[in-house]
Amino acid sequence: MIETQAQARAADAADPLRVFRARFALPDGVIYLDGNSLGPLPRATQARLDTALRSEWGEGLIRSWNDADWIGAPARIGGKIARLIGAAATEVVVADSTSVNLFKLLSAAVRARPGRRVILTETGNFPTDLYIAQGVAASIPGIEARALPRETVADAIGADVAVVMLTHVHYKTAARWDMAAITARAHAAGALALWDLSHSAGAVEVDLRACGADLAVGCGYKYLNGGPGAPAFLFVAERLQAALHSPLSGWMGHASAFDFSDDYHPAGGVGRFLCGTPPVLGLTALEVGVDIALEADVAEVARKSAALWDLFAARVEARLARYGLDLISPRDPARRGSHVSFTHPEGYRIMQALIARGVIGDFRDPDVLRFGLTPLYLGYEDIWRAVEILHEVMQEEAWLSQAERAPGRVT
Amino acid sequence: MIETQAQARAADAADPLRVFRARFALPDGVIYLDGNSLGPLPRATQARLDTALRSEWGEGLIRSWNDADWIGAPARIGGKIARLIGAAATEVVVADSTSVNLFKLLSAAVRARPGRRVILTETGNFPTDLYIAQGVAASIPGIEARALPRETVADAIGADVAVVMLTHVHYKTAARWDMAAITARAHAAGALALWDLSHSAGAVEVDLRACGADLAVGCGYKYLNGGPGAPAFLFVAERLQAALHSPLSGWMGHASAFDFSDDYHPAGGVGRFLCGTPPVLGLTALEVGVDIALEADVAEVARKSAALWDLFAARVEARLARYGLDLISPRDPARRGSHVSFTHPEGYRIMQALIARGVIGDFRDPDVLRFGLTPLYLGYEDIWRAVEILHEVMQEEAWLSQAERAPGRVT
Repeated sequence: MIETQAQARAADAADPLRVFRARFALPDGVIYLDGNSLGPLPRATQARLDTALRSEWGEGLIRSWNDADWIGAPARIGGKIARLIGAAATEVVVADSTSVNLFKLLSAAVRARPGRRVILTETGNFPTDLYIAQGVAASIPGIEARALPRETVADAIGADVAVVMLTHVHYKTAARWDMAAITARAHAAGALALWDLSHSAGAVEVDLRACGADLAVGCGYKYLNGGPGAPAFLFVAERLQAALHSPLSGWMGHASAFDFSDDYHPAGGVGRFLCGTPPVLGLTALEVGVDIALEADVAEVARKSAALWDLFAARVEARLARYGLDLISPRDPARRGSHVSFTHPEGYRIMQALIARGVIGDFRDPDVLRFGLTPLYLGYEDIWRAVEILHEVMQEEAWLSQAERAPGRVT
Repeated sequence: MIETQAQARAADAADPLRVFRARFALPDGVIYLDGNSLGPLPRATQARLDTALRSEWGEGLIRSWNDADWIGAPARIGGKIARLIGAAATEVVVADSTSVNLFKLLSAAVRARPGRRVILTETGNFPTDLYIAQGVAASIPGIEARALPRETVADAIGADVAVVMLTHVHYKTAARWDMAAITARAHAAGALALWDLSHSAGAVEVDLRACGADLAVGCGYKYLNGGPGAPAFLFVAERLQAALHSPLSGWMGHASAFDFSDDYHPAGGVGRFLCGTPPVLGLTALEVGVDIALEADVAEVARKSAALWDLFAARVEARLARYGLDLISPRDPARRGSHVSFTHPEGYRIMQALIARGVIGDFRDPDVLRFGLTPLYLGYEDIWRAVEILHEVMQEEAWLSQAERAPGRVT
């Protein structure tokens, strides 16, 4: 139990993950609590991209598709991400964006469950998940994208549901679904389960195989630190690969792309969900981030995530109880992700003031303050100081109503 | 008329585009004739990406979405590419891959022409164009992807055709369609015309507006020198934007992406064809290549392309007439692109031998030798020397049959 700043510092000194902090190029004077939106720059990325530019692209030119294995990058990096999410290397590829991958997998899933007309999800899911589901529904006659309140989703998995699409860790609240339980419910009803791991991969323990998950997608630029707009990944369980077909039948998903034949024949494995030419620079940066994540022990990351979270919540309670910040994230570590969120009517202005003081979190409409607690480059003292700076903001900002200030400061 | 190597050298000295050569980091000892497959590294790309990494990503972190205008990059760079292809800035965005963009536009086009069931294209079109058309056809009930021999395409544009999809400059032969004529034929039949500009943008003069084109896609990593797997672009004529809907309705195509609402409402303009989070590193590299292309006079580029091409063909005729290389590209500059192709039964081994001697072209099944003649970084003497090295290969390689060698060298 950390109750003083000195104890926080001591916890940092004893932290087995502390060595990872130096792997990231974080600016001085910043406590970065937004790695759940965009992970920071790994120092190694600069040298790696420089090599990709000068040597691979500049010197190797077209030959680097083979000589530098650019062509193998989607499967190679997918195989690495697989180890972070409990999948086999042959079940994951890196490609396109999370949105595009959602379209591929949702379309394939709906077609694999003929006679079932519903894509089931929750209201308030991440917007692009909802929008893509709506786009798939608009594209396929008879299909409906049905979003229900979170607490009613499980009971709504019926005989009309083709696929249940949920974000494992909610982008606003950090609430984590019980992947095994929901997947089992889906299977019992004859539906497929698709998990968006954007706020999970590299942050919490995920075991797609143990949970029996069918499909998944996820983001490369959050906890995987792959860079802004990094390529995304997708997972298709081995047992389903032969039966599922991507509507985006581009040449990289062809069984023999370099035969240049006129007719599409899908590749045998998860590679059929590749589409266009791989984005080499983005893949190169992503691989650096993934390699760092693989060096850390996943259980240790999850343990520290929970400890940072508990410290943040405890400090807010100790220091800010009277300021009307309402915790909207679950307290049970097994039911939450690696960020913590609060609501406050002045949330937007509070976050702007925090950022001006070097504590970078983010704000989500209408009133959510969101703080990413990323074990690889944040320490306990960072958390301590962040809450102290939040306390300063709440005390000192003139636009906060008097009732929300600490009594001692009201003049 | 260049008839000696000295004359070629003199032509280089007088070339107004010669200054652009120094803008590219081409390796010593290489004559790079594959810029139609992967353009070389612009020297400025290294510094620009270093800034994007260190300053924008590393220091700016999440704030760079606004502060470095990452969020505006798809429209900003699209607006620049528009100037290279005769479009308005508000008609082009950069997004995804050529394949994904083809899927979006073909799907939208087919749905905008209800009652018409055919996507018409040519056999032997670039594979991903054919595959994506087949994927769209498989996704939408009643739609057929119909590929016909090139010479029969125009006459087959009938009342059943929803969209004519052609690659403006053919990837193998460099044969160039008459965009204005085919577009007019399509419109006369009530169909839309979609042009793949992958081998055109930055290489030949393109005027989408003057031709009345409806839709277009194109590649960032060929003549635009945007880097391996660079993001692609798409064009939707202003008059069609309100009526066309992307099936890939991701959050970046939303009218108010950052409202995080549950329901999809497409953006008003071409931006509705954006989908997922923009790939910032790829966009950054692409913009450098596009900026260089914009510095060159497009008419001068086209003129020099034609002159390099004529020199290459003339030298092959003068030096290699007896070696059985068959020209398969059109001789009329108005009917071809910026690469030249020959067939030869030993094409694969010839190209391997050429590459070993520093002349990098490429080979396409079953027997095509392809040479990209890119005016920004190739000179007349490069062309002269490339053909001399080809001559050496034909004379000296033991696996070429005796009949194919120069008589004087047969021992």
